[in-house]
Amino acid sequence: MTDMPTLQDVYAARSHVYQYLKPTPLHHYATLSEMVGAHVYIKHENHQPVGAFKVRGGLVMASRLSEEQRKGGLFTASTGNHGQSIAYGAKVSGIKATIAVPEGANPGKVAAMRGLGAEVIFHGKDFDTAREWIMKVATDKGGTFVGPTDEPLLHGVGTYTLEILEDLPDVDVILVPVGAGSGASATSIVAKSINPKIEVIGVQSAQAPAMQLSWKSGDLVSAQMETFAEGIATRVPFENTQIIMRKYLDDFVLVDDTEIEEAIRILLEYTHNLAEGAGAAPLAAALNMKDRLRGKKVVLVMSGGNLSLERLKMILSR
Amino acid sequence: MTDMPTLQDVYAARSHVYQYLKPTPLHHYATLSEMVGAHVYIKHENHQPVGAFKVRGGLVMASRLSEEQRKGGLFTASTGNHGQSIAYGAKVSGIKATIAVPEGANPGKVAAMRGLGAEVIFHGKDFDTAREWIMKVATDKGGTFVGPTDEPLLHGVGTYTLEILEDLPDVDVILVPVGAGSGASATSIVAKSINPKIEVIGVQSAQAPAMQLSWKSGDLVSAQMETFAEGIATRVPFENTQIIMRKYLDDFVLVDDTEIEEAIRILLEYTHNLAEGAGAAPLAAALNMKDRLRGKKVVLVMSGGNLSLERLKMILSR
Repeated sequence: MTDMPTLQDVYAARSHVYQYLKPTPLHHYATLSEMVGAHVYIKHENHQPVGAFKVRGGLVMASRLSEEQRKGGLFTASTGNHGQSIAYGAKVSGIKATIAVPEGANPGKVAAMRGLGAEVIFHGKDFDTAREWIMKVATDKGGTFVGPTDEPLLHGVGTYTLEILEDLPDVDVILVPVGAGSGASATSIVAKSINPKIEVIGVQSAQAPAMQLSWKSGDLVSAQMETFAEGIATRVPFENTQIIMRKYLDDFVLVDDTEIEEAIRILLEYTHNLAEGAGAAPLAAALNMKDRLRGKKVVLVMSGGNLSLERLKMILSR
Repeated sequence: MTDMPTLQDVYAARSHVYQYLKPTPLHHYATLSEMVGAHVYIKHENHQPVGAFKVRGGLVMASRLSEEQRKGGLFTASTGNHGQSIAYGAKVSGIKATIAVPEGANPGKVAAMRGLGAEVIFHGKDFDTAREWIMKVATDKGGTFVGPTDEPLLHGVGTYTLEILEDLPDVDVILVPVGAGSGASATSIVAKSINPKIEVIGVQSAQAPAMQLSWKSGDLVSAQMETFAEGIATRVPFENTQIIMRKYLDDFVLVDDTEIEEAIRILLEYTHNLAEGAGAAPLAAALNMKDRLRGKKVVLVMSGGNLSLERLKMILSR
């Protein structure tokens, strides 16, 4: 791997990110701290304009295109937040975005992509099918395909971890959800480069453990993908983020979907923030590792808030 | 009224506010824009650390105390957000806060005040009873009573309107909920001082219209108070904010509690933000005045997000 991103790449991405976005807040919550037995802070990436951290990456990607690439437009596949990020970056840069989504994609996320001016095309049963198809379309039309773990995206999303370290320089542990791994990779590069003692722990659903199994085994292992949390639903692992996470991540844990749903309920009640499954997974993990976190300063990355109203109703009616 | 706040007072408050808080985002929402037929932006004061705009005021209040006042501590009465604001300001300034709340106060807000280190005492059936009692307690103990419309609070909360005008200089209309009137007063002072053409419209619930009836009639009129939205539940009007609003506010409308509940549902579905009743009232009003807003740039002040889970369940189960 010759081009593993560095802290310097993340610093270089900041000006592109802050041209359009403001830093998100890092809030301390007394009630969550009591529940976990630690000093619990939430990094509110759910407060971003598209409701998820990925928008930082889309802005950096769009800023790096040549004039020819700008004309050809951006093509990608997404279950939602990655697509919104590319749509947002394309919109503010005056570029066309075409996004393939699997059938049954989160309707709120699809509406948001269209609201940002992107062309959204439903294709295939899951992310990987949609992705293979749109890659061919991009080639046929002379456009640029953007994969969910492309380097400029990692540079952009790394900026939220700089903000964490600016606001809470003595953070002990950062818990971050893992889907394709862009957030966790960038978080661990930034945190470890600034202070190697900071523990960075990845979280995935036990109902979609491909990235965790791959990290544990050292191979690239596909797995079942049955979680409701589309932000961390990965069937086929991504190699570049695996390489980074093997170098930098301290641990990688699984939580059950039922634990994620309970975390969504707790977050709504005590922080008044709507988290999507991925965004609630770090709290679910923290509640499972109280002994390990006791007394520490712990940051939970609330990666996004784009939960469908339908799923919320199901969770609250239990 | 000799001491009506000025734009200069708000500028002077900024350094105290930004010592602890970051500017909140102003996001454009395509779906809401389509629903209203205007360019709809939300000012996300629900993203503040205590989940409401009032925290800006508490910081400014705490910064203005003499050494003697600091020793005596702050005393106030609150249905929730005002108390959290005073608790937050007191905590970061190392001062004791004692807060009287009416019986049946929003439990999430009470827990948050206690989490911030405030002493919370339940007293009386409504805000006004709690207020009269705690004023006496403050006098007996040599502390400082803070009313919900005291001048330093207005200076502090005015800062969110400066942020609106920095982010969207050509805003046409600002819709702001009215409880005691600190937010609406400060918004109209700032907006009108910078650009008198900006329309500022207050919103209250038809189930608690005391401030609106007083504004319309020019007298101070008490009224029924049966709204579920405690942030805009005022039985006895406040004189100083009435004087400001009579000078600066363009209009003051009422919305039904059922319309507020529907607005909460819409905001959760399309912006993925939890609004409390007060925070959703501006959208309810906008949906009632589409003709008047058509094609304009409209800012809805989402004043707070501290809705109880119990109320949310009721709204979603309909």
